[in-house]
Amino acid sequence: MFKLYYYPNNASLAPHFLLHHLNADYELLLVDKQSNAQKSADYLKLNPAGRIPTLVVGEQPIFESSAICIHLCELHPQSNLMPAIGDPKRPLFYQWLAFLNNTLQAELMVRYYPHRHTNNEVTIPYIIAAQDARIAEALAIINNQLEHNQYLLGDTLTACDYFLFMLAQWSLPIARSPLTFENLAVYLKRLCDNSTIKAVCEIEEIDLAPFRNTTKDSHILAHQP
Amino acid sequence: MFKLYYYPNNASLAPHFLLHHLNADYELLLVDKQSNAQKSADYLKLNPAGRIPTLVVGEQPIFESSAICIHLCELHPQSNLMPAIGDPKRPLFYQWLAFLNNTLQAELMVRYYPHRHTNNEVTIPYIIAAQDARIAEALAIINNQLEHNQYLLGDTLTACDYFLFMLAQWSLPIARSPLTFENLAVYLKRLCDNSTIKAVCEIEEIDLAPFRNTTKDSHILAHQP
Ligand SMILES: N[C@@H](CCC(=O)N[C@@H](CS)C(=O)NCC(=O)O)C(=O)O
Ligand SMILES: N[C@@H](CCC(=O)N[C@@H](CS)C(=O)NCC(=O)O)C(=O)O
Repeated sequence: MFKLYYYPNNASLAPHFLLHHLNADYELLLVDKQSNAQKSADYLKLNPAGRIPTLVVGEQPIFESSAICIHLCELHPQSNLMPAIGDPKRPLFYQWLAFLNNTLQAELMVRYYPHRHTNNEVTIPYIIAAQDARIAEALAIINNQLEHNQYLLGDTLTACDYFLFMLAQWSLPIARSPLTFENLAVYLKRLCDNSTIKAVCEIEEIDLAPFRNTTKDSHILAHQP
Repeated sequence: MFKLYYYPNNASLAPHFLLHHLNADYELLLVDKQSNAQKSADYLKLNPAGRIPTLVVGEQPIFESSAICIHLCELHPQSNLMPAIGDPKRPLFYQWLAFLNNTLQAELMVRYYPHRHTNNEVTIPYIIAAQDARIAEALAIINNQLEHNQYLLGDTLTACDYFLFMLAQWSLPIARSPLTFENLAVYLKRLCDNSTIKAVCEIEEIDLAPFRNTTKDSHILAHQP
């Protein structure tokens, strides 16, 4: 039995996709971000970083979305959501997951919470502009990787794809949307037909329409992670 | 045979510690950062993110320092630098490595390269001040984890400790040095006696004196990662 401390469309989304895909026995526990519950004494006992998500496995709390994803994959080796030890793709799985988590995700967080990275409000628009460019750079690297690959690691879906879908959804309102990158747009549109993505996005009330209507210049509502 | 594309005291330091600890057959290849060689066409073929390090294993390039560390551990399971699959410490290994890599390391990079995160030079001092506080927060979380643990994961050294040592070394010139945190200071001082840390820091010309003379208010030279 797993317990996922989550908030809709936050970094808990990738672990949520995995739990659903794996058909695991899990419970969702909402962390009330409106009241800053992620910084409450009780939550900090589970996750001293005070961030969302935390997964509790039995009695063991685990934080860090990428660590949670890897752990879920290793608990379910038959799912093939992560290449096995010895598979030449395994280090590439770690590589892309790290890149997504420490680069695209980290740059997005600076973009959406610039006031945390400056002591002067007036400087915020300059930070946002710089971050928009950095996020576009990271998306371009991913777009290139998808040039000859149906999924991030090749021809099979892995946990990296769920992680990327989460970050792509966050990136929709950014100056350069992921949907303006050719390979990424096709890939994201395809992932929208994945039954786990459909089901979990319905639970978390995430609108998939912007991914589907990639030809229209549809207005995308800003959705802060 | 491994090839490590490195630059002294850069994110290649943790992989270098591991290669040395494992007594692996490796070659160091300097990426000339002064001439921006990490953005050269040849290097980008190995590492499209244009960052240091990259490890080449046989013919396979792998980027992302944390991914390289995990892969080296998995290639050398007998080294116990990473808990085995099934060990309850394994998810905690992923957790702390992710935290170090996407939080402490990422915040340090914004601190040292603030101009990359703003379009206006005038705003830089405000970013630096905010980052100093964020780095201190991350160090405090790590310091707490070391309260009852000799190493980050408990009573045995893992790759996480080498990774943390690298980041602690980068943090020395920050407003609140890691050496001002009680548990961290003791831990870092102890790690300075580790034969791999001694040998690799000698090769990369990293001065360990600041860690050893923790009682003196020794002046620490800024050392940009
Ligand atoms: N490195 C962490 C970061 C998680 C993170 O930044 N979570 C955000 C929500 S997407 C959060 O908890 N924000 C609330 C806060 O920082 O107080 C992970 O990947 O799990
Ligand atoms: N996420 C990457 C980041 C590596 C990184 O930021 N490397 C720095 C040196 S410490 C670098 O290559 N800087 C040169 C540049 O960004 O052009 C990793 O952990 O390997």
